[in-house]
Amino acid sequence: MFKRLLIANRGEIAVRIIRACQELGVETVAVYSDVDADALHVQLADCAYLIGPADASQSYLNIDAIIAAAKATHADAIHPGYGFLSENADFAEKVTNSGLVFVGPRAETIRKVGNKDAAREAMTQAGLPMATGSDPVRNATEACRIADEIGYPVIMKPVSGGGGKSIYVANNTTELISAVNKVDLTTSIFYLEKYIADARHIEVQIVADNYGHIIHLGERECSLQRRNQKILEEAPSSALSAEMRQKVGSLAIRAAKSVHYTNVGTVEFLMDKNSGDFYFMEINPRIQVEHAITEAITGIDLVRKQLRIAAGEPLNVKQEDVTFTGHAIECRINAEDPAQNFLPSPGQITFYHQPGGPKVRVDSGVCAGSVVQPYYDSLIAKVIVRGRSRGEAIKVMQRALGEFRISGIKTTIDFHLEVLKDPYFCSGDIDTQFIYKRMIS
Amino acid sequence: MFKRLLIANRGEIAVRIIRACQELGVETVAVYSDVDADALHVQLADCAYLIGPADASQSYLNIDAIIAAAKATHADAIHPGYGFLSENADFAEKVTNSGLVFVGPRAETIRKVGNKDAAREAMTQAGLPMATGSDPVRNATEACRIADEIGYPVIMKPVSGGGGKSIYVANNTTELISAVNKVDLTTSIFYLEKYIADARHIEVQIVADNYGHIIHLGERECSLQRRNQKILEEAPSSALSAEMRQKVGSLAIRAAKSVHYTNVGTVEFLMDKNSGDFYFMEINPRIQVEHAITEAITGIDLVRKQLRIAAGEPLNVKQEDVTFTGHAIECRINAEDPAQNFLPSPGQITFYHQPGGPKVRVDSGVCAGSVVQPYYDSLIAKVIVRGRSRGEAIKVMQRALGEFRISGIKTTIDFHLEVLKDPYFCSGDIDTQFIYKRMIS
Repeated sequence: MFKRLLIANRGEIAVRIIRACQELGVETVAVYSDVDADALHVQLADCAYLIGPADASQSYLNIDAIIAAAKATHADAIHPGYGFLSENADFAEKVTNSGLVFVGPRAETIRKVGNKDAAREAMTQAGLPMATGSDPVRNATEACRIADEIGYPVIMKPVSGGGGKSIYVANNTTELISAVNKVDLTTSIFYLEKYIADARHIEVQIVADNYGHIIHLGERECSLQRRNQKILEEAPSSALSAEMRQKVGSLAIRAAKSVHYTNVGTVEFLMDKNSGDFYFMEINPRIQVEHAITEAITGIDLVRKQLRIAAGEPLNVKQEDVTFTGHAIECRINAEDPAQNFLPSPGQITFYHQPGGPKVRVDSGVCAGSVVQPYYDSLIAKVIVRGRSRGEAIKVMQRALGEFRISGIKTTIDFHLEVLKDPYFCSGDIDTQFIYKRMIS
Repeated sequence: MFKRLLIANRGEIAVRIIRACQELGVETVAVYSDVDADALHVQLADCAYLIGPADASQSYLNIDAIIAAAKATHADAIHPGYGFLSENADFAEKVTNSGLVFVGPRAETIRKVGNKDAAREAMTQAGLPMATGSDPVRNATEACRIADEIGYPVIMKPVSGGGGKSIYVANNTTELISAVNKVDLTTSIFYLEKYIADARHIEVQIVADNYGHIIHLGERECSLQRRNQKILEEAPSSALSAEMRQKVGSLAIRAAKSVHYTNVGTVEFLMDKNSGDFYFMEINPRIQVEHAITEAITGIDLVRKQLRIAAGEPLNVKQEDVTFTGHAIECRINAEDPAQNFLPSPGQITFYHQPGGPKVRVDSGVCAGSVVQPYYDSLIAKVIVRGRSRGEAIKVMQRALGEFRISGIKTTIDFHLEVLKDPYFCSGDIDTQFIYKRMIS
């Protein structure tokens, strides 16, 4: 195992990684920008290193500064977390070339799955089911021609980049032209796909070691999204039979194997609600925000697994040893004002008391006195609950959110409580349009 | 299920009961003394009722005031928690006679198990193994004669009362006379027992419904004690083989059956470290502080079980359905100063941030701004962790306690961190004298 690990991230995921390291006896180096000097991850790490000003491009995205920090603090490995540099193949390569271990897949894998065009091709060859798609779009006229071929509705996505950004759905020519006009086709490559309207977002957690062993840890249902950002996730999905679970798990393993995937990752699918068919979306070559719900139902610590695999340990869990117990739900608590169209709500947290008691886990990146910065992601904490059944998990989440007290900023806690009361949500009748159809229409 | 439950307690156990009620859809009434108006349990309950001044005898021990509060708020049941009135048979009786449900065993059971003399007789008749004991002691001369018969060391205990108070160990005549002189034999009845020096405190969790069904949920190891107050508990005990676990579980069920026990309770045993023999100590007819470690390894919510059983539901778990997964440890965080002989450290909590992340549960009775009162128990929070193994649980606890931040008062957090580092503790070599032999000798 590593002696000292640098965490190239901030917020709750940096705290999460520090916790895993402490439990494994690995020392931790936090990095931080000017404005994060008092951040919780800086307080909890064994040491901390200033890497630049608030602007992420000069700090948390500053590859040279981060590698220099690792060298200066004698770290022997770097964990990228999620977001920031976690899907940057050049970063992974430079980390490795500097003689450090990158906690994640190989740079070539990251590069391959990060380019949607290359990923689509690899997955098509591997026999993964794909939504009808297109070659890259060069202009509005061409886009309209392709869309006519595929048939509306269509979805326009950038070839590179993830996290649900710059994704547009068009139901007709007018909407498609409007979408094309919103993006810069000279700097980014976009392509079109058939849009599945009544879809659920189902993703499968993959764990693979460096020696060809690979398992999946079941699916996560992440259909509750706003602007392609996940809001609430659960595991297992109430829409999957055991047979479907096995099928999507096998598809995920096939996808991962086709790119010689190593370490922890996620294969995302859209599931047509009506037919139950799965369509490959993308592979996320990193830990995900919602990893904790998989931990809750499998008992497997995914961040420890990342570290063990990166340190060269073989996978010690076989597929047949993976069991799923109960139901887990995660609510992402964002510093946003739902009443003002989810406007970010930065500022100082003046009072903070997180829920506790049975079946509740909180992963937080803040404490009382923390300043929520306007420069970064608005996620401040995650509440994860377990229940024997989905119904029990919903009740525990309602109880937990009801006792969460945060003052000084606006949060999405009350919005989640509204979701949890919704009869469609409670009956499990959800899809990727749920938030628009039921909550903010 | 009840419509509205009054909680005749304060602190973390009142919060715990509120959580269970919220998950079951039961409204909650908190009661509070003058000084507790801003306490966390008052904030979290649906409504709150002032029952008297700070002095517990006039508030949390004031039977008439509590029953009046239940009547005034139209509660249909009362949960006593632990401590205060939880083992007071008269209280249970008056609650029942007022037409309310008492969440606990019948008054006659509480009375029987609360009188150590009657309990000893019942248990002897039931065939429970007992440490050699005596009739009540009337004076020092008689005490010395009985001790000579039993053989030193002996332990002197009051017939009534629990929680490890007024208990004295004597290794010789001088120490015994000194102990007798410390107590008032005209108002309290004491008796002598053979003292088992190398003993582990092993207790078994019992759950019984009103229809004769009874199961046990395994044992808790509570050997780490200071002045007979538990400090750190774990489940399962590392000293028990599967055979011994079954044996002590059967003994506990036999003990409970002999007093027609109903609801949730604990049968406490001393285990001779050398022979592995168990000796009956007492039955605690209430929820215990350390119940959460049993919840952690069985997945069964004990407070919900209390409520369901009191509401007349039959037990829906069979003994063969009870499974034990992993290892759990609880550390009691007290507002005390270990450097000053664990002097209580009341005062206002100026900063409070409790640990989170995987495998960690916190049951707290306080938040930032709370005032720890000098009038009541010094327990402010419990940290409960899970691990696949005892070793993993220890590491998770070290990590969790390391991130617990409480300012404004002294706490026992650092003391626990010392215990968790001790090689004897880590190897599982503990007994009821561990704290004296290893930590504060």
